[in-house]
Amino acid sequence: MSAALLSPDALEAALRGIGAERYHNLHPFHRALHDGKLNRGQVQAWALNRYYYQASIPAKDASLLARLPTAELRREWRRRLEDHDGDAPGTGGVARWLRLTDGLGLDRAYVESLEGLLPGTRFAVEAYVHFVRERSVLEAIASSLTELFSPTIISERVSGMLRNYDFINAETLAYFTPRLTQAPRDSDFALAYVKEHARTVEQQQAVLGALKFKCGVLWSMLDALDYAYVLPGNIPPGSFRPS
Amino acid sequence: MSAALLSPDALEAALRGIGAERYHNLHPFHRALHDGKLNRGQVQAWALNRYYYQASIPAKDASLLARLPTAELRREWRRRLEDHDGDAPGTGGVARWLRLTDGLGLDRAYVESLEGLLPGTRFAVEAYVHFVRERSVLEAIASSLTELFSPTIISERVSGMLRNYDFINAETLAYFTPRLTQAPRDSDFALAYVKEHARTVEQQQAVLGALKFKCGVLWSMLDALDYAYVLPGNIPPGSFRPS
Repeated sequence: MSAALLSPDALEAALRGIGAERYHNLHPFHRALHDGKLNRGQVQAWALNRYYYQASIPAKDASLLARLPTAELRREWRRRLEDHDGDAPGTGGVARWLRLTDGLGLDRAYVESLEGLLPGTRFAVEAYVHFVRERSVLEAIASSLTELFSPTIISERVSGMLRNYDFINAETLAYFTPRLTQAPRDSDFALAYVKEHARTVEQQQAVLGALKFKCGVLWSMLDALDYAYVLPGNIPPGSFRPS
Repeated sequence: MSAALLSPDALEAALRGIGAERYHNLHPFHRALHDGKLNRGQVQAWALNRYYYQASIPAKDASLLARLPTAELRREWRRRLEDHDGDAPGTGGVARWLRLTDGLGLDRAYVESLEGLLPGTRFAVEAYVHFVRERSVLEAIASSLTELFSPTIISERVSGMLRNYDFINAETLAYFTPRLTQAPRDSDFALAYVKEHARTVEQQQAVLGALKFKCGVLWSMLDALDYAYVLPGNIPPGSFRPS
């Protein structure tokens, strides 16, 4: 199948079309999570596994930062590191995620040890880190574009979880509040970059492929959770078992 | 939890114990496959996804071969490349796997394109390739030790599939016959290497961790298949859909 060169706006439309088909707000586990269909152990499993994603984002961003050619680009991308790692102990997105796992009653040392992770989580997250490290800067930036779609999912998740779970409160969901402004700022930048720099058919196809890949990362993390913790009897040997 | 230094035989026993708990012959998808519980489309999905594992083994072995320090070790490991890539077009394990996908009615170009892969398959296989490339030679060799357990699973798989599926015959299962002699030869070597070279507690723990990791690779590939193709409605966007 040969592809045509797209205008910048047509490229944006194609990217948004990928999100409309493949973003993980469409996954049954996401719907179950925000609809209040999960028990505390299942929400613990989600938070525990998703921790590894959160904790790996700075490594992903740092490996891209190391390859960016200008101070302007590096300053832009450095802000992501600041958002996730904070400016002092206990600040930043990774620390805020641990407030969620704390609030759910998980032992922090156990969460940080990664011992209870599903193998599917580990492999998906590491695929993302490797992708950003090994592919072109253009593809690496394009793979961040799932953030175009994240404000919607965050709103659904926060309101649904607060409404439906008595073991969740606004403090334990503190991770998400700053993301509602950080994610659009970051994705505006990444989208403008991609629209400006994907000038050939091959570059545009690579950009579209990068976003599909990243949607697959997020989707397969929910596949692994749904299989292991919602369907009975499927927790892999060695992974977290809710008490 | 602190670990004690193990004798070589105790290390072997610990490795075999990991297999007894974590090898994918215990997975429900494996049991369904050999018990004849799957339909042709589900067996196609298994063969299509497993193709990526088979096709990636030479890359995994070549990256280890490149780091082996002696001609003796490299000759030993080179034999694995010969087994998988053959000596002429149409020979070797990867080509024999394509006879299986051919026999199941899958289009060879589609199989080789990897377009229909489950993301979970892709990430698990790539995790294995990256592990072998990035970890110590000792861990890389230890991660091959799942072959200690493969003769049993191959026997179960071949006899069960021949008995239970009219769309399977001995020719389409030609991949497996040579593996019954290759795998024990290879795992004898790898086990002897590991027993000789894992001399500290840290090295022994790394070896045990490598085998657990590899069991997780194989296990999560079956998780992904079971979730997507046995349970209804879970095929991820873009992945193979049986006709």
